[in-house]
Amino acid sequence: MTYTELFIFTLEIIGTIAFASSGAMLGIRKNMDIFGVNVLGITTAVGGGCIRDLLLGIHPPKMFQNFAYVGTAILTSCLLFALFYLKKELLESSFLEHYERVMSTLDAVGLGIFTVMGIRTALYLESSHINNLFLLVFVGVVTGIGGGMMRDIMSGNTPFVFIKHVYACAALIGAFLYIFLCRVIPDTAAMLISSLAVVAIRMLAAHYRWNLPRIQ
Amino acid sequence: MTYTELFIFTLEIIGTIAFASSGAMLGIRKNMDIFGVNVLGITTAVGGGCIRDLLLGIHPPKMFQNFAYVGTAILTSCLLFALFYLKKELLESSFLEHYERVMSTLDAVGLGIFTVMGIRTALYLESSHINNLFLLVFVGVVTGIGGGMMRDIMSGNTPFVFIKHVYACAALIGAFLYIFLCRVIPDTAAMLISSLAVVAIRMLAAHYRWNLPRIQ
Amino acid sequence: MTYTELFIFTLEIIGTIAFASSGAMLGIRKNMDIFGVNVLGITTAVGGGCIRDLLLGIHPPKMFQNFAYVGTAILTSCLLFALFYLKKELLESSFLEHYERVMSTLDAVGLGIFTVMGIRTALYLESSHINNLFLLVFVGVVTGIGGGMMRDIMSGNTPFVFIKHVYACAALIGAFLYIFLCRVIPDTAAMLISSLAVVAIRMLAAHYRWNLPRIQ
Repeated sequence: MTYTELFIFTLEIIGTIAFASSGAMLGIRKNMDIFGVNVLGITTAVGGGCIRDLLLGIHPPKMFQNFAYVGTAILTSCLLFALFYLKKELLESSFLEHYERVMSTLDAVGLGIFTVMGIRTALYLESSHINNLFLLVFVGVVTGIGGGMMRDIMSGNTPFVFIKHVYACAALIGAFLYIFLCRVIPDTAAMLISSLAVVAIRMLAAHYRWNLPRIQ
Repeated sequence: MTYTELFIFTLEIIGTIAFASSGAMLGIRKNMDIFGVNVLGITTAVGGGCIRDLLLGIHPPKMFQNFAYVGTAILTSCLLFALFYLKKELLESSFLEHYERVMSTLDAVGLGIFTVMGIRTALYLESSHINNLFLLVFVGVVTGIGGGMMRDIMSGNTPFVFIKHVYACAALIGAFLYIFLCRVIPDTAAMLISSLAVVAIRMLAAHYRWNLPRIQ
Repeated sequence: MTYTELFIFTLEIIGTIAFASSGAMLGIRKNMDIFGVNVLGITTAVGGGCIRDLLLGIHPPKMFQNFAYVGTAILTSCLLFALFYLKKELLESSFLEHYERVMSTLDAVGLGIFTVMGIRTALYLESSHINNLFLLVFVGVVTGIGGGMMRDIMSGNTPFVFIKHVYACAALIGAFLYIFLCRVIPDTAAMLISSLAVVAIRMLAAHYRWNLPRIQ
């Protein structure tokens, strides 16, 4: 494993923790039992990549090829469950607010790295995919936001991408950026810049409450 | 492209517009932003074919092989969004009623052609599928109604096939009809007759409010 | 067909009837028409296996290779629909209570045999999967509970695995047990013991109202 690979892997694990956390917290808030909390945590963390692999014909999906991601999701879900099980009062404290602010940042990191890694998976699988712009953008965005969509559909919420500020758009812009950059600058730089762009758009959108147009 | 192919393609684009329109209108009614409206429009238009391709093992799904369909869906969604964004009052006018009546007819055309093209995709992929009646009927119907089901599940509605009059049944009858006819008459004629049968059943069912039996 | 194969097939058909019944009954309770009742019956019966086949890359899924399972699901759905259509008063009688108690037992048999058969499908497809514990457990559990999850998501309910006592856990324990046993004792014995364990855990959990921990 080179330093670059290690760096990518670290970002992926950070994203996995943040995604699993958002799934597990939803399960905890809906009073699900520990099994349900884990299902939502795992689904949010690896669901997007799983949809991507089904579309690209990667059998079995990558979530079964390296247990690190699902393992991280299970660990995150169980730790959160144990924490709020033992200290229920934390659910109504200012701790939760701080926790969610930190997680929101890590979630943006996850969105960035998963979007880029989704595109790289398609390119690595078949280099001719470089000419299929729509396919690349689609698998990038779906890797980034698919897990959250599955989480919401499974738990009976309206999928957040339909209401959350600019979340999916950040992934969309990052996907286009990476596909453009990876042809003109070294891959590692392209990855880094595109992922950072996603994080920046997400954070700015959350801070300034950017909205896409909608019909009131 | 022969005249027959051009004719089929025209019908498919008409169906794509009608399907995308039904998805986009649902998003507009639910106050989704322009991204959500596009997601619902695209999903309704190409979701059924995507499920079919996953079942048949076509990787990546055909929606990624010819951008015309997704492009049409995006264009339709954006145009509708722009129209109702600029002229909000249209949402409560008699214009909408006329619009939906026209779209309902085009939607029937889409249901017919997508059902038939779903079966043809399976046959073209592997001609031995001709002996698997259940597979052919299933992929035909799922190509026709799968996008609408995904639209409803994603937006939190009860899938319309569970309540809408005879919608899925029209696809079912058209599928059986095409599978029978394509063995005994020229393919173009078989396609035309089966698609028209779907349209006819749909329109008659809507006009006379046919219902399947249910337990009250 | 050997006696063992016949025995397995019998258990599978029993499970198919029970699963289809749970889907069809939900459709009947929600006042769906006969088409919707069949869609829910079929989905519950074969949906889990279909997800498994998509993950493993079996195209087309096994539900299209042997019509016996889907045929059984259709027959079950239509018979139930006819019964309650002709004798609506049964829906509010003590008959329903007895019926559901019997079905709950058969459902446990289905959960057991489908979980085990899911794992066997993965092993039969590629014997090297024996080393991928997570994959085996996942496809086992998803074969057992995936149909019920699809049923609930399609009909707008919170998926039962998030609330039902120990249902998914029974499949999980049965999956681990079978994967362990199939290496140390003859396959038929391993199947039988693991399936029975699932049934026993399910029945005990229902009777004693076992619960997994949740945060109140």
